[in-house]
Amino acid sequence: MRKHGWFITFEGIDGSGKTTQLKMTEQLLRKSHFHILVVREPGSTPVAEKARKILLSKKNQITAESELFLYLAARADLVRKIIAPALNRGVIVLCDRFYDSTVAYQGYGRGLDIDLIGELNHLAVGQYEPDITFLIDVDYKTSLKRRKKQRDRLESESMAFFNRVRKGFLKIAQRERKRVIILDGRKRAEVVFTEVDSCLKMRLHIK
Amino acid sequence: MRKHGWFITFEGIDGSGKTTQLKMTEQLLRKSHFHILVVREPGSTPVAEKARKILLSKKNQITAESELFLYLAARADLVRKIIAPALNRGVIVLCDRFYDSTVAYQGYGRGLDIDLIGELNHLAVGQYEPDITFLIDVDYKTSLKRRKKQRDRLESESMAFFNRVRKGFLKIAQRERKRVIILDGRKRAEVVFTEVDSCLKMRLHIK
Repeated sequence: MRKHGWFITFEGIDGSGKTTQLKMTEQLLRKSHFHILVVREPGSTPVAEKARKILLSKKNQITAESELFLYLAARADLVRKIIAPALNRGVIVLCDRFYDSTVAYQGYGRGLDIDLIGELNHLAVGQYEPDITFLIDVDYKTSLKRRKKQRDRLESESMAFFNRVRKGFLKIAQRERKRVIILDGRKRAEVVFTEVDSCLKMRLHIK
Repeated sequence: MRKHGWFITFEGIDGSGKTTQLKMTEQLLRKSHFHILVVREPGSTPVAEKARKILLSKKNQITAESELFLYLAARADLVRKIIAPALNRGVIVLCDRFYDSTVAYQGYGRGLDIDLIGELNHLAVGQYEPDITFLIDVDYKTSLKRRKKQRDRLESESMAFFNRVRKGFLKIAQRERKRVIILDGRKRAEVVFTEVDSCLKMRLHIK
């Protein structure tokens, strides 16, 4: 089946403000009477939420390979059960993190093979690739200030790790210029959103 | 680090008698004063047991791709945390199912790409491939009689599925003749074990 909906993802390191931008997008699109579905990764299905619990619990020491496979398991489940049927019905799907995060964190961050992760992402999502990706770019220091005090397993990583992940996101954006839009996450949320707003109004023909 | 131990796996469809053969092997080797570690797949680490719970619960409807990635997550964790260190210390590791099961069930059974599963298995286990694999081969009817009444999610599959998996195991054995030893699982456990016994005595130089 051919998809009619739009698949829009929000990416960036923790504390970049991507979830805020997603929520503002949701409001804008609801006002314009679009059918919207909001999901997050990893999670949003019973199987994927169980994988999320394993991934984010600080108790679990997880090897890089095992971590990669758990993210992919969650993604394959979410795409096939929730995202694909929604896109096929013409719904606009907003997703908080998607497969670019795996390339950035497990690839650039942990050092696993970037091309192999690309293949695995493809196996996990099939034809359901994002149409638009907003990458909210911030430096480590800014992100740190914004993060909640209770950090999960991945948020407790070092500055060097986050710098590799951030650079990874920017490399992905360079390779995928048509899809990925880089936003300056140091600015106030309302200012960042003016760019999201004008992009969406143009692409989705909102008056 | 180079491994000194032996890595021995037991494969076959559910109800083939592989766990019985594993236990008899354990007894034989303990009598001969070897250091033994017994593990099962998926499982045997906290992370892998959580993945096992998701995989085997009948409540969970899991897509083929998600299932594949969950098995690989469990395997990567078990190999790196338990199997590799044991083999490096010279221990004999006995494993109830290992990566051949993924090729047989998710590849031949569910129809996912066999070569890709091979690559993913390699990523999950690295250099820690089995030295000896006993494949206990039985027909579906025999296996059915032996299985417990409470079946898990995978054991509830159809006859056609198990026939594809069984043929898959036999194809793996053909490709990997040096490693995989096919045993006739229709025979009584004691009779099947005479072949395991003579193989191990020869390979491990047990008097």
